[in-house]
Amino acid sequence: MTYCVAIALEQGLLFASDSRTNAGVDHVSTFCKMTIFEQPGEGAIVLLNSGNLATTQQVVSRLRKHELIQACPLTAMDSIFSVAELVGETLRAVIAHSRGETIGQSDVDYSATFLVGGQIRGEAARLFLVYPQGNFIESTADTPFFQIGESKYGKPILDRVIRPDIAMAEAVKCMLVSFDSTIKSNLSVGLPIDLALLKQDDLRIAQRFRIDLDDQYFREIRQGWGQGLRKVFNELPAPDWLAVDREPPLPSDSQR
Amino acid sequence: MTYCVAIALEQGLLFASDSRTNAGVDHVSTFCKMTIFEQPGEGAIVLLNSGNLATTQQVVSRLRKHELIQACPLTAMDSIFSVAELVGETLRAVIAHSRGETIGQSDVDYSATFLVGGQIRGEAARLFLVYPQGNFIESTADTPFFQIGESKYGKPILDRVIRPDIAMAEAVKCMLVSFDSTIKSNLSVGLPIDLALLKQDDLRIAQRFRIDLDDQYFREIRQGWGQGLRKVFNELPAPDWLAVDREPPLPSDSQR
Repeated sequence: MTYCVAIALEQGLLFASDSRTNAGVDHVSTFCKMTIFEQPGEGAIVLLNSGNLATTQQVVSRLRKHELIQACPLTAMDSIFSVAELVGETLRAVIAHSRGETIGQSDVDYSATFLVGGQIRGEAARLFLVYPQGNFIESTADTPFFQIGESKYGKPILDRVIRPDIAMAEAVKCMLVSFDSTIKSNLSVGLPIDLALLKQDDLRIAQRFRIDLDDQYFREIRQGWGQGLRKVFNELPAPDWLAVDREPPLPSDSQR
Repeated sequence: MTYCVAIALEQGLLFASDSRTNAGVDHVSTFCKMTIFEQPGEGAIVLLNSGNLATTQQVVSRLRKHELIQACPLTAMDSIFSVAELVGETLRAVIAHSRGETIGQSDVDYSATFLVGGQIRGEAARLFLVYPQGNFIESTADTPFFQIGESKYGKPILDRVIRPDIAMAEAVKCMLVSFDSTIKSNLSVGLPIDLALLKQDDLRIAQRFRIDLDDQYFREIRQGWGQGLRKVFNELPAPDWLAVDREPPLPSDSQR
């Protein structure tokens, strides 16, 4: 499985991906699921991927070899919309090719999903979710974040906190709480977490870093969140209307 | 969709189910997903179900007509294990029958899952999860609760709190937080919530009640939990190492 999140804030874009892949529980590996195309001053694009690893690697390799990106990185692309189109077409072609050449097992799931975000000079930062079918949707002020992979465990805190006008620091904190919940509940999502920040109109990656088990800040978040939840839960009122508690205790001989 | 939870505590068993069913988003109804067979002093059995509504209703109807349960409720069943077996066999037969007589659309999912728990005089309270295939698993001290339906959103708090030795009141509180998270995140899980409590060795249902929108206690839990989460989140340290925050503000003319 996989867990990736991308958030479109007024301040800029924020991307995060876990790095565990598995083909069955007895074949677990670490692969970075974040790809960056960058030409400082002209623009930067970040891709996050979930799904079949062979598919996603092939899509990224084809994109790297693509004439528009190779010959004249980014500037030939007039918009992140065009990049999303290119990712969608490439993704659909790779999946169709894999399905077509299948000789052995035919029930393999070749599908994959991409998050595509960034900014190219001349337009604002934009964020897209590209489906295995090659079509895609764009984030809006009402829906400023996308998740792919194992999205459920980590969604509630994003729903409560993420709005386009919050600060980048608050979004990073929220993202790490979301990853903590997901990693706790799904063994197939694992550290390290790759993060990338793109500041609006900077036209370059502001920061890229990796969070591992020994990361001091992530450890504080995990511990603080766990203890805080427990405290909030303990402070909630107990039901005082339970029949099981209202009844007198059964006669017993506790000395025996 | 559906959300049902059953917990096996040392104090007894606790059951809860939502009551929303839907066949597409334009066909939403309210159905109770909890069935109780009770013969006070001899024993009580609670069934919770998720999955195809026609399947689950047919299973419950067949069980009600079953000679063992009809002729001599419960006492003819020597163990909750036997009840789980009977539910499993009935469930498998109903699904096979529905599949066999399909004339029109053939991709309908007829499957369903049951939680079966209770106590019959002569043995301790027991809890089982019965799969659509008719086989089943039993709860243990290591895994004292089962969920069926939309289980992911509500699982983290259960994982953190539920142990066999906690009080029934704490388990009820935890269950309602779990339902709150699930209802918030999945439109197809909805109020009212049906709850049933069975106290160890009581051999009857101790309490059965329904929680609706206007339930004062549930409202306190929802509000307290939401505000508490937000407070814990706000108190977590912010990342002070973000490049986007470290950089000096860009020159701008804010008067213009």
